[in-house]
Amino acid sequence: MTSEQQTTRRIVLAARPHGEPRDSDFRFEEAALPELADREALLQTLDLSLDPYMRGRISAAKSYAAPVEIDHTMVGATVSRVLRTTDSALAPGDVVLGYGGWQTYSVERTSYLRKLDPASAPVSTALGVLGMPGFTAYAGLLTIGRPTPGETVVVAAATGPVGSAVGQIAKIKGARAVGIAGGPEKVAYLTEELGFDDAVDHRADDFTDRLRAAVPDGIDVYFENVGGEVFDAVLPRMNTHGRIPLCGLVANYNLTDLPNGPDRSGALMGQILTRSLTVRGFIQTEFAEDQFGTFLDDATGWVSDRSLKYREHVIEGFDNTLDAFRGMLSGKNFGKTLVHIAD
Amino acid sequence: MTSEQQTTRRIVLAARPHGEPRDSDFRFEEAALPELADREALLQTLDLSLDPYMRGRISAAKSYAAPVEIDHTMVGATVSRVLRTTDSALAPGDVVLGYGGWQTYSVERTSYLRKLDPASAPVSTALGVLGMPGFTAYAGLLTIGRPTPGETVVVAAATGPVGSAVGQIAKIKGARAVGIAGGPEKVAYLTEELGFDDAVDHRADDFTDRLRAAVPDGIDVYFENVGGEVFDAVLPRMNTHGRIPLCGLVANYNLTDLPNGPDRSGALMGQILTRSLTVRGFIQTEFAEDQFGTFLDDATGWVSDRSLKYREHVIEGFDNTLDAFRGMLSGKNFGKTLVHIAD
Repeated sequence: MTSEQQTTRRIVLAARPHGEPRDSDFRFEEAALPELADREALLQTLDLSLDPYMRGRISAAKSYAAPVEIDHTMVGATVSRVLRTTDSALAPGDVVLGYGGWQTYSVERTSYLRKLDPASAPVSTALGVLGMPGFTAYAGLLTIGRPTPGETVVVAAATGPVGSAVGQIAKIKGARAVGIAGGPEKVAYLTEELGFDDAVDHRADDFTDRLRAAVPDGIDVYFENVGGEVFDAVLPRMNTHGRIPLCGLVANYNLTDLPNGPDRSGALMGQILTRSLTVRGFIQTEFAEDQFGTFLDDATGWVSDRSLKYREHVIEGFDNTLDAFRGMLSGKNFGKTLVHIAD
Repeated sequence: MTSEQQTTRRIVLAARPHGEPRDSDFRFEEAALPELADREALLQTLDLSLDPYMRGRISAAKSYAAPVEIDHTMVGATVSRVLRTTDSALAPGDVVLGYGGWQTYSVERTSYLRKLDPASAPVSTALGVLGMPGFTAYAGLLTIGRPTPGETVVVAAATGPVGSAVGQIAKIKGARAVGIAGGPEKVAYLTEELGFDDAVDHRADDFTDRLRAAVPDGIDVYFENVGGEVFDAVLPRMNTHGRIPLCGLVANYNLTDLPNGPDRSGALMGQILTRSLTVRGFIQTEFAEDQFGTFLDDATGWVSDRSLKYREHVIEGFDNTLDAFRGMLSGKNFGKTLVHIAD
């Protein structure tokens, strides 16, 4: 906990998971921290972000980023405190957003760090509503979804950090927001706390009927981060010229084989054709250079005036990281999943 | 054949086809022509266009247009001669593009007609390279596909009226064009006559390997009008941020059931996600108001200077319309399918 800290406790990938990640796919270990080179910083991790994309990074499948290699530290965004640095632009005690990974201490290049102002917003928001998840919502909804006032926007995993921002930004832009979430508590939160126009429980037996009732004018924008049965219920409700920003498919991430047939891939293309839909896969990084600054200004303002609320699901203690990760993948989190490691 | 013509020979839909359309799904009949109202014209059909979209119009499934009703005349674009008209802007002998349908004579509102200039291009081109198919290629490729110089554009059904225009317009814009077609004669035509950079026979046993070899830098734009096994071979070759304008799925049109599993629809979404692809269904009508005039200017120039060549597959005689239609759906045509009905 001092500038003399010489080791880190970390979680490395031990094996590529087959299906749901198991404890044996990871390994906790103690490791020496490297000496600081020029423009680096020794950081103590305060909060570790857990996000669905991480499941993709531990598969061997081609994705937008190289997979985490076996025996390498799991990747992840972190909010950390600077203990020591060789960069005069930072000072011990500064709190920074970085990409420290699943470990208690890290050494990072300062060019990868963004200094946070604890006075403007709680620093953990840099991992959620004012960070990658919030920006994913903002860029995907406004650049690809482009809802116009009065249009209907539907988002799944709607109490999560991306989904909750999607619905609230849709409202700010004058659209109608309908959320899909698992369980009555989350559904109630969407309409009562976040101001969604309607919300539907995907675990309900009559989910498809309820969804239909919640979108009487059809769906103009479906912000897709889930896939699976939720998508099956959404697709027939899409309006002509509907837009589907696609940033995740968490329902598929733990699948080990293709589902049983029939093969509906051609029928999916048929729906895209006959409804003149746009389906656009994206990762927020492609928009960051152009839009992140505007996002941060907009979202900080919206958080201040309470038009953009957020909720954090905080797991205490680095030892509980694996359970927290599995829980997030199966929707047990209620809000942005963070592992709180140090104060 | 005169202004006194009082009847038309027409083909009506007798039953909704199950799978490949059969003769018994249609009925030839003789019918009385209505009297001319104000601003109408009595037309003699010279050429009838046969296009893949017509298969969709005779299904009951939801599509971008209402289906043809049972006992109603089959729809279709036509080049016709004016025999008589109540609109002073037209005169007998004028040749017009209209939507007369599958019949030898028609009465149409003149607001739906476009007068053609036989001196500027053969009038039949208004059904192909200078008409809906050419505009489908132009709008889909340039508005959705947006190839930049040096990028690779792949198109299937590449000797058809849409595909041949896609590849040639891609070349005009500085992209690399690779065509997919059925059989060695068509493949040779693409490279030797139309100037495609490469062409692949989808009937070849090693089609997938040949396609891979033809796109060493991957595929940036796949103009999709076919679906099925061709798409299966294309998808793994798509580059990050690739674009897939989707205007047809002729391989699916006669399918009566979903193909056997496994269900690859989720995997398709996964590819769109991890490669940040854009899949955009469209029909040219949505772009017509903004772009048709520009298209017609551009394409007329390109046809004149031979940078945009076209080929017509002309079936002689209205009696052969049904065979011509089935042949077009199964790829037996070589170029734009037209039924030549009168001179």
